[in-house]
Amino acid sequence: MKDGIETRLYVTAPLAEGVAVELDGGQAHYLRSVLRLGPGEAVALFNGRDGEWLARIDGLAKSRATLTAERRTRDQRPEPDLWLAFAPIKRARIDFTAQKAAELGVSVLWPIMTRRTMVDRVNTDRLAANAVEAAEQSERLTVPEVREPTTLDRMIEQWPADRPMLLCDETGAAGGVPGIAEALAAAGPAMRQRAGFVIGPEGGFAEEELDRLRSLPFVTAVGLGPRLLRADTAALAALAVWQAVAGDWRTSTD
Amino acid sequence: MKDGIETRLYVTAPLAEGVAVELDGGQAHYLRSVLRLGPGEAVALFNGRDGEWLARIDGLAKSRATLTAERRTRDQRPEPDLWLAFAPIKRARIDFTAQKAAELGVSVLWPIMTRRTMVDRVNTDRLAANAVEAAEQSERLTVPEVREPTTLDRMIEQWPADRPMLLCDETGAAGGVPGIAEALAAAGPAMRQRAGFVIGPEGGFAEEELDRLRSLPFVTAVGLGPRLLRADTAALAALAVWQAVAGDWRTSTD
Repeated sequence: MKDGIETRLYVTAPLAEGVAVELDGGQAHYLRSVLRLGPGEAVALFNGRDGEWLARIDGLAKSRATLTAERRTRDQRPEPDLWLAFAPIKRARIDFTAQKAAELGVSVLWPIMTRRTMVDRVNTDRLAANAVEAAEQSERLTVPEVREPTTLDRMIEQWPADRPMLLCDETGAAGGVPGIAEALAAAGPAMRQRAGFVIGPEGGFAEEELDRLRSLPFVTAVGLGPRLLRADTAALAALAVWQAVAGDWRTSTD
Repeated sequence: MKDGIETRLYVTAPLAEGVAVELDGGQAHYLRSVLRLGPGEAVALFNGRDGEWLARIDGLAKSRATLTAERRTRDQRPEPDLWLAFAPIKRARIDFTAQKAAELGVSVLWPIMTRRTMVDRVNTDRLAANAVEAAEQSERLTVPEVREPTTLDRMIEQWPADRPMLLCDETGAAGGVPGIAEALAAAGPAMRQRAGFVIGPEGGFAEEELDRLRSLPFVTAVGLGPRLLRADTAALAALAVWQAVAGDWRTSTD
């Protein structure tokens, strides 16, 4: 961590030199009762817009904390714009998906109800809490946006035509689907501005859903190899490969 | 699944037409009490050598099951030879690592005790059970080998000089470490025969450990981007990228 500050918190307030920031009850409790910090101690704050700031604790009560932003420790920088639209799965694994996707730099988490989705309610507050905590720990300067669940049809209607949609297609090489690394390389720089993965439920997309998705002009089907992956594994694998091949894990400049 | 058979089990016995196979107590219990299967019903068996076989249940008692292998449903094929040497982490996340690594086609799981490893005992039986279950569900025809934990020094002594060691290096782009996709592409076909990742503990490798690793002739340092990844995320991301760029997720033939 920067400057030896071990604690990073996401806040929504503006951050600038000398600005007072009030934390919510959960964050105040975390600083006071979990970390046992007190007035005068420093934490890092970020809000997704103003970079990362060293802030000093002024006061800390049971459900209230006030801090003053002292100086910027990192500038805000552009981050990859990668969405993950995914059929929700059961509790522990959806928490896990939100955490890992946040670490892997996802910008939008979007639960999608498909024909074979076995989960009928999604706790988006919990999803967001998991994503924010992972963002704080991963040194991101943003947190993912967590969208309300929607149907596959509505998601398709709302998908921007200028954002490549990467469909993780279990048909695989046997069905003529290119491997994900080849598909991303073939798409070239166009794929690096923005993209989004769509991942089906454990039972896969229904055939008519796949046909619908494949017919969209902005869709590229990508394969994740010959083994059957669980939905959460597929999501994380896809995000990691995109970051490595097209995203900000790249170190080459071509 | 092939032939509509929903159940796949890993066995150690040879598989050939007409051969009788006896399952262990845990597998017998699973077939009888969890899946409620009975005599005459079919399951798929694989042993890592003889392909996948349709087998018919002959008898099923509380802690004993006998089956007869009827016909081969898939031939054994070469699989990627990718090792994962990793500093063990706490319970839920080490189980998760074993499961996901098995899905991602790892051939060897090797717990390594490093300076900053916070876990002093590893239950390799549980690690293997998690890996086998994931292999069964992922339609692999092999299961990963789970090695006994060893120290970093011993691991280095035992590492074959002809196996590229990929060191996930948190120093990242700032330290001149190439991104993982670039490093794998630069290594070309040599990296595709066999390779192994080495992943440090949550606190990272100690500086002298990193120096030692970097000095080995068969080591390539690879970067996993600007965000701080948890050890389990780093392991899965690395395996996925290798499979996509150098392993059996590739669909091109260059």
